[in-house]
Amino acid sequence: MLKLSKLLSHSRNQLSQKRLFVEAVNHQWLRGMSTKASLSTAGQNFLPDGRSAAKIFAPYSIYKGKAALSASPILPTFSKLESGGIRVDRRGVIFLTFWPAIGERKYDWDKKQTFALSATEVGSLISLGPKDSCEFFHDPSMLSSNAGQVRKSLSIKAHDNAGGYFISLNVVNNILKTNDRFVVPVTTAEFAVMRTAFNFALPHIMGWDRYTNQPPKSVDENPPRLASEFMATEWNR
Amino acid sequence: MLKLSKLLSHSRNQLSQKRLFVEAVNHQWLRGMSTKASLSTAGQNFLPDGRSAAKIFAPYSIYKGKAALSASPILPTFSKLESGGIRVDRRGVIFLTFWPAIGERKYDWDKKQTFALSATEVGSLISLGPKDSCEFFHDPSMLSSNAGQVRKSLSIKAHDNAGGYFISLNVVNNILKTNDRFVVPVTTAEFAVMRTAFNFALPHIMGWDRYTNQPPKSVDENPPRLASEFMATEWNR
Amino acid sequence: MLKLSKLLSHSRNQLSQKRLFVEAVNHQWLRGMSTKASLSTAGQNFLPDGRSAAKIFAPYSIYKGKAALSASPILPTFSKLESGGIRVDRRGVIFLTFWPAIGERKYDWDKKQTFALSATEVGSLISLGPKDSCEFFHDPSMLSSNAGQVRKSLSIKAHDNAGGYFISLNVVNNILKTNDRFVVPVTTAEFAVMRTAFNFALPHIMGWDRYTNQPPKSVDENPPRLASEFMATEWNR
Amino acid sequence: MLKLSKLLSHSRNQLSQKRLFVEAVNHQWLRGMSTKASLSTAGQNFLPDGRSAAKIFAPYSIYKGKAALSASPILPTFSKLESGGIRVDRRGVIFLTFWPAIGERKYDWDKKQTFALSATEVGSLISLGPKDSCEFFHDPSMLSSNAGQVRKSLSIKAHDNAGGYFISLNVVNNILKTNDRFVVPVTTAEFAVMRTAFNFALPHIMGWDRYTNQPPKSVDENPPRLASEFMATEWNR
Repeated sequence: MLKLSKLLSHSRNQLSQKRLFVEAVNHQWLRGMSTKASLSTAGQNFLPDGRSAAKIFAPYSIYKGKAALSASPILPTFSKLESGGIRVDRRGVIFLTFWPAIGERKYDWDKKQTFALSATEVGSLISLGPKDSCEFFHDPSMLSSNAGQVRKSLSIKAHDNAGGYFISLNVVNNILKTNDRFVVPVTTAEFAVMRTAFNFALPHIMGWDRYTNQPPKSVDENPPRLASEFMATEWNR
Repeated sequence: MLKLSKLLSHSRNQLSQKRLFVEAVNHQWLRGMSTKASLSTAGQNFLPDGRSAAKIFAPYSIYKGKAALSASPILPTFSKLESGGIRVDRRGVIFLTFWPAIGERKYDWDKKQTFALSATEVGSLISLGPKDSCEFFHDPSMLSSNAGQVRKSLSIKAHDNAGGYFISLNVVNNILKTNDRFVVPVTTAEFAVMRTAFNFALPHIMGWDRYTNQPPKSVDENPPRLASEFMATEWNR
Repeated sequence: MLKLSKLLSHSRNQLSQKRLFVEAVNHQWLRGMSTKASLSTAGQNFLPDGRSAAKIFAPYSIYKGKAALSASPILPTFSKLESGGIRVDRRGVIFLTFWPAIGERKYDWDKKQTFALSATEVGSLISLGPKDSCEFFHDPSMLSSNAGQVRKSLSIKAHDNAGGYFISLNVVNNILKTNDRFVVPVTTAEFAVMRTAFNFALPHIMGWDRYTNQPPKSVDENPPRLASEFMATEWNR
Repeated sequence: MLKLSKLLSHSRNQLSQKRLFVEAVNHQWLRGMSTKASLSTAGQNFLPDGRSAAKIFAPYSIYKGKAALSASPILPTFSKLESGGIRVDRRGVIFLTFWPAIGERKYDWDKKQTFALSATEVGSLISLGPKDSCEFFHDPSMLSSNAGQVRKSLSIKAHDNAGGYFISLNVVNNILKTNDRFVVPVTTAEFAVMRTAFNFALPHIMGWDRYTNQPPKSVDENPPRLASEFMATEWNR
């Protein structure tokens, strides 16, 4: 865990070790999936046991000169409790995929790299001011024997002049001896789409839509005495 | 009620006595619940008679050095009226739970304290500027013979430098002779998540989703004369 | 229509005569309703023929020293077209109700006055800066022989110091020789609730949720040639 | 494609050629539709094969002295994949329709011109500051032999003084030798309605509501070992 704490000291977003821990689980699992299905896009909703709930392909994609970037939400998964309730099992993420340009308007999907934004990282992104920057560090193998061997960093930096941001992904893989770097310049308009779409998706990747989408059986036909009296009091004043 | 008016004079949010009154009802009731089920989290949707609509556990949790904080929405409950309509019985809240750290990354859930944010308090939180602060006072026993014996205050204060906020809960219980204080530093990114999630939840805890989720039977196949003529006028111009 | 054009020249929101025309229809109709059912609150969804779709009572209410104010959305009504489509018949509104205080924490619901905010007026309200003000003028009898006899004006003015706004309704009724004025000071927090709730409700009162809530039968199992080829091109690059 | 690249060099929004390509498909197709059904409004949800999913007419319309403007969302269409998933076929748009005034409060719907805003163009519009402007260029015949013969430009320019924006559409048709220009002054309040409504519609025209509206079958009754253990660890600390 030594390498982990070094990573943490570089984190500009004060992620707790616990949070990184969660992301390591997500990453390890997601990587396994993407290896098995490397031709598919990021927009799938996998369940932890490998079944997929419903595969939706509606990524927001940005194609630029040197690389392309696409973003899709992945919903959380839930476990049923013995009590009848449900509990978030694995948090949802916004899944970013980068893949390089290999010629004019030609891109190589097989060389893609991914980065899964947690709810808090999404919060960081959507609250960026026009001059702000942020950077996130992930270790996708954190829980395995390969911990520390692969390091991913995502940086979002404000343009100096034009507005908009540079979104860069750097993946250093000490096992494969590779170092991949993608830079996608994102215009103010494109970032506004991401901000609005991520803002829309955030309560869903947190699982909060489960609270609000409940069937209307909470209508109580026989409210208890206290509440009735109180309402009467409120109404008659 | 003397102590109450003193509390009110300290309120920075101009809560009317009536509003505090409502919250006292909520609190008293919620405390009863949490005593009975002290091992459960805050994310449950209780109905006033003690039945629970559907237990969802998807809190947004922040673990920091001295304490942890989690937030979950609780939907309002409704009563059916004789006329066939439905009326909000008890307003929904955003339910905050604080519990202390008792070692490195160890937290004691049994020592938790809670604070239920009303719609207006949520409005105060989500409209905070980067330099702003706010503070709320609740008396969870306000309607009982213990009125004034327990005082809760929640304060949200902007960091001096780093951005983000300190969220603190102080609970003074004159019956148990206890004084609990929790301070959770919340980063800009984490606060952005809270802001987006609370903004999402607010219309739901107000019950306004009931207005908008109605079945489409409002389609009128035979609109009255006046409206038709008016639309014709609009259409033909 | 002379009086009308005078009213229009006072409008600070550049409402076209057409828009006022629509509101007159709404008002006339809503007034008829509220006369028949003067003890009910504003949160009902009437259909033009007098049937009500579903009566929901979940107003956001603010009780202050001299008056109280509550707000509820009213959805639009739709007509079925011969072609099978549906068309908005009457636009939705945010319905404001003011009623006076007649003692300490006592209010007289029978003396209430109402004001129905159109989509554009809601847009004006939710885009108010902390120093801004706006004012709206309605003639609820505009289409009847009583046109010009009743004038309503709603003004929203920034507090000089404290933040928040004064929301005032003035109703001059030349038939009944009455002049009612209500002023409700609204805190920043309360206005934030209104802003969030109105922002949530706005697409619904416009009827835009009808576009987005459509059943998923738009999935096309046999896309036409052109689109397929295009997608193939996009995918293979 | 020469003319195209000239157009591109004028684009203030850094649209890639690929994006324009997509829009050309949309436009060509939409124009075909509007020719066949020129009396209908823009609010229809067409599927690529000409069937319509459900015709909704709830445009947001602004009537001004020289022209009127209405806006409606058009949802994306999807294709079913052999794998059982669904993929966005044609992106959704916000469909703008302009038509000229031909007298006092008289407008000629037959002389309308349209402009379909892509997700990124909507992002540009909703992120405009009070002093900002933007301009978009479309070639509705881009893929046909008439490429370059019709050029549409939409400009949104901040008012110098009053707040609000001028929204202008210019359509130069070299085949018909026509040059149509529409200018609609939009108040701050009307623009706030557009901003809120477009913000609401954006995730839907992107197809992201498909990710979030999935049935709750993602509840996993038997979570795999790893996740369970992890949750246990998280819960007991």
